[in-house]
Amino acid sequence: MEAVNRAEETMRSTSEGRCRVVIEDVRPQIDAGRFPIKRIVGERVVVEADVFCDGHDAIAAAVRYRADDSASGALPAAGNESGQFAVAAQRCESATQDGWHEVSMTPLVNDRWRAEFTVDRVGTCRYTIVGWVDPFLTWHRELQKRLAAGQVTAVDLAIGADLIAAATERAEGDDQQRLVEWARRLRSEEALAHRQQIGEDADLPTLMLRYASRESATTHGELQVTVDRERARFSTWYEMFPRSAAAEPGRHGTLKDVAARLPYVATMGFDVLYLPPIHPIGTSFRKGRNNSIEATDDDVGSPWGIGSKEGGHKAIHPDLGSLQDFRQLVGAAQEYGIEIALDVAFQCSPDHPYVTEHPQWFRHRPDGTIQYAENPPKKYQDIYPFEFETEDWRSLWNELKSVFDFWIEQGVRIFRVDNPHTKPFPFWEWCLGAIKREHADVLFLAEAFTRPKIMYRLAKLGFTQSYTYFAWRNSKHELTQYLMELTRRSPSLVRATGARELPAPAEDTCPSNVAEFFRPNFWPNTPDILNEHLQHGGRSAFMARLTLAATLGANYGIYGPPFEHCWSAPREPGSEEYLDSEKYQIHYHDLNRPDSLSNFIGRINRVRREHAALQSNETVRFHDVDNDQLICYSKSSEDCSDLILVVVNLDPHHKQSGFVNLPLADLDLDASQPYQVHDLLSDSRFLWHGARNYVELAPEIVPAHIFQVRRRVRSERDFEYYL
Amino acid sequence: MEAVNRAEETMRSTSEGRCRVVIEDVRPQIDAGRFPIKRIVGERVVVEADVFCDGHDAIAAAVRYRADDSASGALPAAGNESGQFAVAAQRCESATQDGWHEVSMTPLVNDRWRAEFTVDRVGTCRYTIVGWVDPFLTWHRELQKRLAAGQVTAVDLAIGADLIAAATERAEGDDQQRLVEWARRLRSEEALAHRQQIGEDADLPTLMLRYASRESATTHGELQVTVDRERARFSTWYEMFPRSAAAEPGRHGTLKDVAARLPYVATMGFDVLYLPPIHPIGTSFRKGRNNSIEATDDDVGSPWGIGSKEGGHKAIHPDLGSLQDFRQLVGAAQEYGIEIALDVAFQCSPDHPYVTEHPQWFRHRPDGTIQYAENPPKKYQDIYPFEFETEDWRSLWNELKSVFDFWIEQGVRIFRVDNPHTKPFPFWEWCLGAIKREHADVLFLAEAFTRPKIMYRLAKLGFTQSYTYFAWRNSKHELTQYLMELTRRSPSLVRATGARELPAPAEDTCPSNVAEFFRPNFWPNTPDILNEHLQHGGRSAFMARLTLAATLGANYGIYGPPFEHCWSAPREPGSEEYLDSEKYQIHYHDLNRPDSLSNFIGRINRVRREHAALQSNETVRFHDVDNDQLICYSKSSEDCSDLILVVVNLDPHHKQSGFVNLPLADLDLDASQPYQVHDLLSDSRFLWHGARNYVELAPEIVPAHIFQVRRRVRSERDFEYYL
Repeated sequence: MEAVNRAEETMRSTSEGRCRVVIEDVRPQIDAGRFPIKRIVGERVVVEADVFCDGHDAIAAAVRYRADDSASGALPAAGNESGQFAVAAQRCESATQDGWHEVSMTPLVNDRWRAEFTVDRVGTCRYTIVGWVDPFLTWHRELQKRLAAGQVTAVDLAIGADLIAAATERAEGDDQQRLVEWARRLRSEEALAHRQQIGEDADLPTLMLRYASRESATTHGELQVTVDRERARFSTWYEMFPRSAAAEPGRHGTLKDVAARLPYVATMGFDVLYLPPIHPIGTSFRKGRNNSIEATDDDVGSPWGIGSKEGGHKAIHPDLGSLQDFRQLVGAAQEYGIEIALDVAFQCSPDHPYVTEHPQWFRHRPDGTIQYAENPPKKYQDIYPFEFETEDWRSLWNELKSVFDFWIEQGVRIFRVDNPHTKPFPFWEWCLGAIKREHADVLFLAEAFTRPKIMYRLAKLGFTQSYTYFAWRNSKHELTQYLMELTRRSPSLVRATGARELPAPAEDTCPSNVAEFFRPNFWPNTPDILNEHLQHGGRSAFMARLTLAATLGANYGIYGPPFEHCWSAPREPGSEEYLDSEKYQIHYHDLNRPDSLSNFIGRINRVRREHAALQSNETVRFHDVDNDQLICYSKSSEDCSDLILVVVNLDPHHKQSGFVNLPLADLDLDASQPYQVHDLLSDSRFLWHGARNYVELAPEIVPAHIFQVRRRVRSERDFEYYL
Repeated sequence: MEAVNRAEETMRSTSEGRCRVVIEDVRPQIDAGRFPIKRIVGERVVVEADVFCDGHDAIAAAVRYRADDSASGALPAAGNESGQFAVAAQRCESATQDGWHEVSMTPLVNDRWRAEFTVDRVGTCRYTIVGWVDPFLTWHRELQKRLAAGQVTAVDLAIGADLIAAATERAEGDDQQRLVEWARRLRSEEALAHRQQIGEDADLPTLMLRYASRESATTHGELQVTVDRERARFSTWYEMFPRSAAAEPGRHGTLKDVAARLPYVATMGFDVLYLPPIHPIGTSFRKGRNNSIEATDDDVGSPWGIGSKEGGHKAIHPDLGSLQDFRQLVGAAQEYGIEIALDVAFQCSPDHPYVTEHPQWFRHRPDGTIQYAENPPKKYQDIYPFEFETEDWRSLWNELKSVFDFWIEQGVRIFRVDNPHTKPFPFWEWCLGAIKREHADVLFLAEAFTRPKIMYRLAKLGFTQSYTYFAWRNSKHELTQYLMELTRRSPSLVRATGARELPAPAEDTCPSNVAEFFRPNFWPNTPDILNEHLQHGGRSAFMARLTLAATLGANYGIYGPPFEHCWSAPREPGSEEYLDSEKYQIHYHDLNRPDSLSNFIGRINRVRREHAALQSNETVRFHDVDNDQLICYSKSSEDCSDLILVVVNLDPHHKQSGFVNLPLADLDLDASQPYQVHDLLSDSRFLWHGARNYVELAPEIVPAHIFQVRRRVRSERDFEYYL
């Protein structure tokens, strides 16, 4: 592995055959260091490894880490604050020429060691492990035994003195003086008489650890963390078609109309507003309503049919407005705490300027025509895919990256990438990597609805978030298995007591550390996906699916207004396409419809904002309910102070009830005391006792509970108040 | 990882951004390719990997392998004999300039691919995976769809013709002609009329696969297999002290006496005769009987106190005989099918020539004395360890390797290495690697009774076999858990139906693929280990432990004659040392003792030789018995024709009985038919019916059954005969 190999090279080079410490099975890491793990600012990285050497000598190990761009001392000394660490920290302060910081590792069991640090800066952070044999520690340990056995000789003390003398050359200032003094003391006439005090004095080992010789240390290969801003982990997306944003019927919406929608979007609590492509749309082979082959003159075409004489991926559709309007929209959104996310779809309409300017970027057929997209028998004559195998691939890559660069200049920091799985992996690794190096705060959402290995690879290559199979996971079993797969982090090989047990994932062949690199984004619907459950489940299904997406996924989104207006009509039976889809025509949306779910959505998003438990995924635990139509799970904040318990009725047609069975101890609940569950949706409170408690959910009302669990009940009076 | 990295480099270099195929999670491999896996000649290597690319193009993949020293075509074309493979084989025949052979991989599920090959030569075998996008396969697949949809055009056929034309440049001879013809045919006037035949003709795709373009292929980094001779996997060891080999009491045994013992050892069925160090023994601080500090003049000392004025690690103790005698012993043993294994213990007595010739190889104390071995409060003044951290480590390494070289020249091919875990890992990797390159048939047994991670590391570094914790695994639970840990191979991610389920190993932190690199060798006793069970269990315990070692471990050994004579007296209560241990004094052994277990041992070793099922470990399966004092397990040959079922009474003091419960289907047994279990120890036969059958074992007789299971019973008459 990259990791191990580099470690070996280090070993051979620094002191050849005398590097006796082995560092194995370092976690976390992805594919042996081939890809970075992912964290957000402020998160911990808990590093574990097998560290050992031959024989019986004492060893020491430390995790070293540095921000890629870190100036000396940029990252604060992190990790445990034990004396040992203080030492390590000091060592590294003295070594921050190179920006490295250090945390001493602690032995656990079976030669497993652990240390942790916190990443507190967006960008790339590197980490590695260094381990070394420590002759002084060995000597000191044996001195204790000799003292116990009454075997200490002057020679034994002289050996210690020599080790200390050697360390003085690595020490400075006071420390150096103290070491010189220690060496003198161990060599003195009275040393033997004072052997007991010498052996017991804690100052000496602390001092010596600080100046341990690392000549023959083994250093593991460097590993990487991609550190993103918080929105990478916790984001709430709203997708809408700008051209349907007009305040009155019959008009082509504009970016100004979108700006006018911001209060509506903000009130519902969304912080990312994602717009489908806003570029000029081709006319050749333009698709009509409901994707019909013939388009009439007044058909507006699909926003994904990018490019016309008005321009391509760096232009804005004239009917939507100007670049100026766009910049204003970005600015206005910021004032509502909303980021504008753009859709990047690397494909062209036949009218795209690229087609004439760079014909070599497309595949040509023997008859001279350009190869359009097709999946026999289906043909998509309105779409030309890029030919990534062109001899001219370098210029193609550069131009495509420049599309991101252009919109980044306009203030965009989030991109939703259309079908990344139909472009080569090496392109994404290069493109996303280059952009992140220039703008570490840019986030990418991969819209790859394809096979799991491909989706995971894209995430490893640099996509920040990924669409998932959520829309097709509707049963309790499906949801449970899928979430267990997505939330697995490299398990600590030494389980903390009470740590969540990680069951085998549903798919035998899925990686065991998905959560280290793959951040799911759950969408109950998209312009391409109106699944069967929503088609037939009515309003209750929309509420249930929204609750699931918003509480299972720290990142989730909806496509509105069709979602809040519960659009459920498919283009035809068995299709997941919307009837009269906005992909091919303009709609007017009355935002004041009395049946709108906007208030419900607003309430759920407020709960998400107010509860840290719902802002990450790794703490999710599923709990037993004696009814397969009821799903129950909990999430908690890292400090466990915030505990959220969700129960959802998966049956949109009937009332369902059953007994929830909670693992009280794991949830830090006192079995002998009642505890309060406060439904943040209905604001009703219940007093629960013990593990088993009754729940009942009627689809016609609200098909879900989002309980805040209050562990301590203060007084009898509260009981009455609660009840 | 080395693997992935190299793959990446390949990708970037050969065709830069256009290598679209990804190769992930290749198995088997150890620590991402850092270490070789192990096989013996004739064994299969089943290779699996995730192989996929972006988009919807068809891909192909192949496993490539070559013997490190292979001349062109040295290895036969292995693996499946499908048409596809025939193609691959042919490709590689045409590519054996470089000695590589190739097996096409077959897609399984979820982008997992598999192929296998057989290693048939001792030495190192390299293997890798190559994957590529195949435009022709893609075209041909779509042609089928177009035909079904009635959409084929002349242009579609012309595209195929262009791909074929390109392939002609890679083809030779007839093939080239046929391809030219095919291209012409697809471009002809009548092509469109004949489209159906063209699409259905199997000749074209077969021909084209052979000449697929690999310009943009992705090649994984090379992985390695250490291929050993069969004795690495299946060996039967007997350890004895040459100086106790005299045919009559009161004489120092010699190598000639050992030669005279060969018939005795051969009759018991051993094929490795391992001798403790045969070198001159130091006199300074020589230990007396029972390891007493004071030695009398007639004390012979410990063979591990190596070196005197008569010589060191390359000399033979004068009382044992001459180098000439040793060579004769090696030759005589060969005639009995026995190999002589020597003990290599890298440590010196104070009288070793090294001490004066190379003082820099030892650690010196401030008072000028040399540091002897100690573990306070214990002191071993008779032993000087080498100082591997000496500045002069290179010359030390070379000299130590030359010790192996010397005895290899005398005909030795098996070494038992004493305490390898007290010498640096880098030394072993270098030393064993260098020797194996020069003499691929040399085997090394690691005597490291230490922590699991260290034992596993030594195995990864090149030790062929390893001592284990077997001596301290006595209960049914201990034995089951331990064997499950030791016999795990990288699990296929796609389980073959009926494949053995691999339960989680006992130790949470043990590797999941131990059997890929660690070959256990089970010893019920050694000169250092007389465990409690044998001290108190009497003859029955010796028989039970021997049966367990010999049937659980394809490699096992005993230290005799103390084993066959059931020596059970410890030096003192609580000690695992033998009373009057042969380590410190000479014993006379009467080989004709009526109570000797030699016949029993001979019978068990004959069963091992006659039954392939007992010659490897990976097929072991434990079966339910409703009595914790009875352990039951089965092993089968790779083709499952040979099925051995073992039941052992772990209680040396009482008769135990119970019902064995067998998974009939997994063992390929017909639930509707009786089957015969033939006890190869007692030669008694039983007719069993169904899954549950009664067993009863009395310690005073034989505490074990070794059943050969006969699946098909031919006729009623046989029943009677059997019963």
